[in-house]
Amino acid sequence: MIISMSPGATAEDIASVVDTVTARGCEAYVSQGVSRTIIALSGAVEQIGSLDLRGVAEVRRVSAPYKLVSREGHAERSTVWVGPVPIGPGTVTLIAGPCAVESPQQTLEAAQMARAAGAVLLRGGAFKPRTSPYAFQGLGEAGLKILAEVGAETGMPVVTEVVDARDVDLVASYADMLQVGARNTQNFTLLRAVGRSGRPVLLKRGMSGTIEDWLLSAEYIAQQGNLRVVLCERGIRTFETATRNTLDISAVPVAQRLSHLPVLVDPSHSGGHRDLVLPLSRAAIAVGADGIIVDVHPRPSQALCDGAQALVHDDLRELAETVTAFAPLVNRIPAISPLTLTGHAARVPVGA
Amino acid sequence: MIISMSPGATAEDIASVVDTVTARGCEAYVSQGVSRTIIALSGAVEQIGSLDLRGVAEVRRVSAPYKLVSREGHAERSTVWVGPVPIGPGTVTLIAGPCAVESPQQTLEAAQMARAAGAVLLRGGAFKPRTSPYAFQGLGEAGLKILAEVGAETGMPVVTEVVDARDVDLVASYADMLQVGARNTQNFTLLRAVGRSGRPVLLKRGMSGTIEDWLLSAEYIAQQGNLRVVLCERGIRTFETATRNTLDISAVPVAQRLSHLPVLVDPSHSGGHRDLVLPLSRAAIAVGADGIIVDVHPRPSQALCDGAQALVHDDLRELAETVTAFAPLVNRIPAISPLTLTGHAARVPVGA
Amino acid sequence: MIISMSPGATAEDIASVVDTVTARGCEAYVSQGVSRTIIALSGAVEQIGSLDLRGVAEVRRVSAPYKLVSREGHAERSTVWVGPVPIGPGTVTLIAGPCAVESPQQTLEAAQMARAAGAVLLRGGAFKPRTSPYAFQGLGEAGLKILAEVGAETGMPVVTEVVDARDVDLVASYADMLQVGARNTQNFTLLRAVGRSGRPVLLKRGMSGTIEDWLLSAEYIAQQGNLRVVLCERGIRTFETATRNTLDISAVPVAQRLSHLPVLVDPSHSGGHRDLVLPLSRAAIAVGADGIIVDVHPRPSQALCDGAQALVHDDLRELAETVTAFAPLVNRIPAISPLTLTGHAARVPVGA
Amino acid sequence: MIISMSPGATAEDIASVVDTVTARGCEAYVSQGVSRTIIALSGAVEQIGSLDLRGVAEVRRVSAPYKLVSREGHAERSTVWVGPVPIGPGTVTLIAGPCAVESPQQTLEAAQMARAAGAVLLRGGAFKPRTSPYAFQGLGEAGLKILAEVGAETGMPVVTEVVDARDVDLVASYADMLQVGARNTQNFTLLRAVGRSGRPVLLKRGMSGTIEDWLLSAEYIAQQGNLRVVLCERGIRTFETATRNTLDISAVPVAQRLSHLPVLVDPSHSGGHRDLVLPLSRAAIAVGADGIIVDVHPRPSQALCDGAQALVHDDLRELAETVTAFAPLVNRIPAISPLTLTGHAARVPVGA
Repeated sequence: MIISMSPGATAEDIASVVDTVTARGCEAYVSQGVSRTIIALSGAVEQIGSLDLRGVAEVRRVSAPYKLVSREGHAERSTVWVGPVPIGPGTVTLIAGPCAVESPQQTLEAAQMARAAGAVLLRGGAFKPRTSPYAFQGLGEAGLKILAEVGAETGMPVVTEVVDARDVDLVASYADMLQVGARNTQNFTLLRAVGRSGRPVLLKRGMSGTIEDWLLSAEYIAQQGNLRVVLCERGIRTFETATRNTLDISAVPVAQRLSHLPVLVDPSHSGGHRDLVLPLSRAAIAVGADGIIVDVHPRPSQALCDGAQALVHDDLRELAETVTAFAPLVNRIPAISPLTLTGHAARVPVGA
Repeated sequence: MIISMSPGATAEDIASVVDTVTARGCEAYVSQGVSRTIIALSGAVEQIGSLDLRGVAEVRRVSAPYKLVSREGHAERSTVWVGPVPIGPGTVTLIAGPCAVESPQQTLEAAQMARAAGAVLLRGGAFKPRTSPYAFQGLGEAGLKILAEVGAETGMPVVTEVVDARDVDLVASYADMLQVGARNTQNFTLLRAVGRSGRPVLLKRGMSGTIEDWLLSAEYIAQQGNLRVVLCERGIRTFETATRNTLDISAVPVAQRLSHLPVLVDPSHSGGHRDLVLPLSRAAIAVGADGIIVDVHPRPSQALCDGAQALVHDDLRELAETVTAFAPLVNRIPAISPLTLTGHAARVPVGA
Repeated sequence: MIISMSPGATAEDIASVVDTVTARGCEAYVSQGVSRTIIALSGAVEQIGSLDLRGVAEVRRVSAPYKLVSREGHAERSTVWVGPVPIGPGTVTLIAGPCAVESPQQTLEAAQMARAAGAVLLRGGAFKPRTSPYAFQGLGEAGLKILAEVGAETGMPVVTEVVDARDVDLVASYADMLQVGARNTQNFTLLRAVGRSGRPVLLKRGMSGTIEDWLLSAEYIAQQGNLRVVLCERGIRTFETATRNTLDISAVPVAQRLSHLPVLVDPSHSGGHRDLVLPLSRAAIAVGADGIIVDVHPRPSQALCDGAQALVHDDLRELAETVTAFAPLVNRIPAISPLTLTGHAARVPVGA
Repeated sequence: MIISMSPGATAEDIASVVDTVTARGCEAYVSQGVSRTIIALSGAVEQIGSLDLRGVAEVRRVSAPYKLVSREGHAERSTVWVGPVPIGPGTVTLIAGPCAVESPQQTLEAAQMARAAGAVLLRGGAFKPRTSPYAFQGLGEAGLKILAEVGAETGMPVVTEVVDARDVDLVASYADMLQVGARNTQNFTLLRAVGRSGRPVLLKRGMSGTIEDWLLSAEYIAQQGNLRVVLCERGIRTFETATRNTLDISAVPVAQRLSHLPVLVDPSHSGGHRDLVLPLSRAAIAVGADGIIVDVHPRPSQALCDGAQALVHDDLRELAETVTAFAPLVNRIPAISPLTLTGHAARVPVGA
């Protein structure tokens, strides 16, 4: 059950609703939607009865197992803002950057490539969850520092993965958006922690996660009061070995029909090959994704992580053209950012 | 090993090559490509040595397990013609029609809807392979007759499924293109029979077929001398249950890189829901598919087969707009047909 | 809906029932069960009403989509006899032989190995469905002849695959049991043809077939009046690449609960490695399979097909011990055959 | 590369080896195997050259990506001891208990059922990772306390899941063995934390984890010096929906061939239905699993978690008989425990 508060509801109104439903045997989870507060109830919802309280706009049963992220109780699709950058139904937001932060120089070059291609958010991994313990595990806080500096230098808010609930505050002190990776999609401890951080969250789909599993993971974040969740399809595991994963392109419209949250596509990790990134990016925009997130690297052959799928210079020009050309066909504009538009002079010397 | 004959090679030249390689212990499979004949060799290929024979343009080792359909020995992508309708790298070909032929009236209405949406080939099933023996199995030859008449009436060459090698001649006597369905992708008897028919073949991917399996199935057809094969991605079986199958959109560029054959997408059977067909069609064109094949039905709720995924009137206008808008962005034009362009008066009264 | 006839029902009783239900708008499919005739109805079953006819023992709605093979209308589990050899709930039946019949000598040696290990049915492929058209496709009728001769020589009824509906009569003229392979599990033409043959059928599960799909395929055979169907689990396709397929061991008890048909396991094709065959055979017997079917070859390294999974001499002694030791723990006895028990002198010179 | 120290190697010997290889540009990971210390090297292993140092028994290249857990460098299979209870190649160890600890009474009843069935370790969840945030999440520390008390009362060391690296010390203060669940198999933070705990670890396979992924996850634990890892196959995600997951029974012999670690099977979570647990348990022991772990509940219909798969009284007697009957056939004995043998009087009043 979802209670939608009216836009003008006050904190007292909300508190009063929570008190009332709690007294009737329910648990209440308050979350801030795009334009209004919504409250999910669990427990003895059948005993709620009528709720004739100030500020209550609508009470609705939600048949889906996820409540706060469901479109049943929140019909308009949400836009999540990362600083001045929107991710939502009117735009195609391009996020790009190196898979892993390796050095100030490599990160800056990658960021400049990303920005030249129209990216408005910078991605880059400092904590890398790797299948093998002998693989490069990321630079940790040093990487976060580099990323934040390069983001400031190039005028792009940064998104980076967090893999440990204990690191959420640390990562949030450097990053504008927190990413939860495919291997942690059911790390519920981590989901709750990023939920409490208040930062926008990029939630990747698990390798074997159904769309329902994925939305329930988003609900874990939302339950902590944080509805600034962006879903990201990145391929699922199937029997096909010609691609790294199988991009489930249908998951985009399905998730958008079931949930009000924005949905991105990661064509780099799904395909796993450079020459698939552009066609899959076109498919993603065409199918209605709210944006894409891609790997770039100035020298892929030397990359410490996933070089085979990183875009290089010419690819990026083509990617920029793709976004520009395809977005209007799905009634969107490429997301732009005041920060990158103004050239945004560097405040912090990178690698100092 | 693939021998490419020069465009001007004569039948004697080809016969001479076959005799020579056979004498050296190989089996030769002659197939007619877009602009030249190619010959696949198996057996003792390491003993072939040099082939300084008239008409031989090139001899090339092909590392892939499929030879005739591989791009290694046939770099330019092929266009398969179905009557006057091309399926290939320069166009986006729209195939539409009812999942099953149910009656002359329903088929004609569906065909008119298809044509209005820009379809240039008419699909429709007369032999329906159904998971349950209690489900509607198709009208058989009566259905073929209806389909052929409606195709003639509406100016669209027809494509229809054949499920039994014994029926290939019968079906070929009514149909312009033969379809091999997902359940028969490794029915090698049927593959050889459609190969021998000389008709263009629409080869669907198996539900659990890897891309390599699929190309090897195409090779079975090609080995019979028939390279007029069009591949069709229609979704694979995964753990996700929100869609009927999981459309493997990446399979399009991967198959196009590995094989010279055209690749279509079937968004109806992959998604299994009407509201997914349009987004998936956009994705298919954007990713570079050479066309799409969709289900239409004048009254989906009464359909005897797969009504949930059939497009109806408004959808079709949107589909037409989609093809028109997206094709140029991938450097293609919508395939057009002289038959539908001229209005093509009916030669045969439908349902007579 | 399933009508169970009483054991003493006559042909006239059955005909009378069929006439009655047909007159009321249903289609009737008559099939001969273990001890009684059962009749499946489709169509307007809600109009059947009471059926107070001679010979009718019970009328029961069957909720499963498959009817004749369902346990809902046929509670006791069936035993299928292949000549004097039972496959059913009281026994563990061992079927063994070469994956492909290659020569009289190889087949005879493999059969002798099989018999020494306790096998009572001989398997061997003459028509081999191969993913690649360049792989060995089997000896065809010459192979059938060898197989039949070796079966006679060694006292083992033979089971062999049929891949083409047109070959069913030919294959049935040599073989005691017809196998439908994994790639043909939804080749409905073939299913109907083996149904009409009257021969017992070994029906493998499709690589991506759900258990329900599999039982519906069995229903296609049963609808033709042939309930002598033995199901065979042989592994499904998953993301795991360490084994050829993933043996779905749970499918055995699940299928046995849903259907009265016997269920075998093929540990050779599921694992794909010789050293997995014995552990998987133990698991199969322990889980309650009604038998196992394994590949043997006198010289696996020279095998033309699937040598990596063929058992050789020492393995077979261990296999024999396994069957003997495990069968009693699941309240079964190893199936024995009067033919192999008596030594059964050869009637036909092999390879003559 | 793996260095096996001789059984009598001293701490100084080990330190000397580590110093030497570190000086040559490698990283060294020291882990304590069954009878000897082994050291994995990563980095510039090609520069190690000869290692003529005291205490070095063997230096071996390991081709697998996992080193410490590989059988290449540790041929004998390991036995992991949980208190006085062995899990390893000579025994079949039965672990049983409630899926979730709900109350002292329920836990005690379940434990008594488990013990009567021959279980020597008690399982029970206090921190429950649930797909839905609205599902019962476990009692937390209160649950740990109940579990420890009941374990002491019934003479069974306890195994329980830990889902948060921050809780490892807390859980280790109550539990004899730490479980890492399927959803956390690639939560590398957690893997390292349980590695450092020194406690034996039960590592479940991920829902979409290949066997290689699983062994690499075990390597994360081993790298922290902890080789007391027990692998647990619990079913993978496939297209089949008749069972909760698809038990990959072949994974047992495959993992045992690749790794020296013990391998258990969880028939409760793989099948997801009570009536599958016994057949799958038989299959698990027959295939060579080193033990099984099952859910029991005194009143499954009231269970807060996974009641459908919990065994009840009669099932448990049958399970006990199964273990007793099948273990000898695979040359094992049922694992017994001095604690349960002696009746082990309760030291702590349960639920006090």
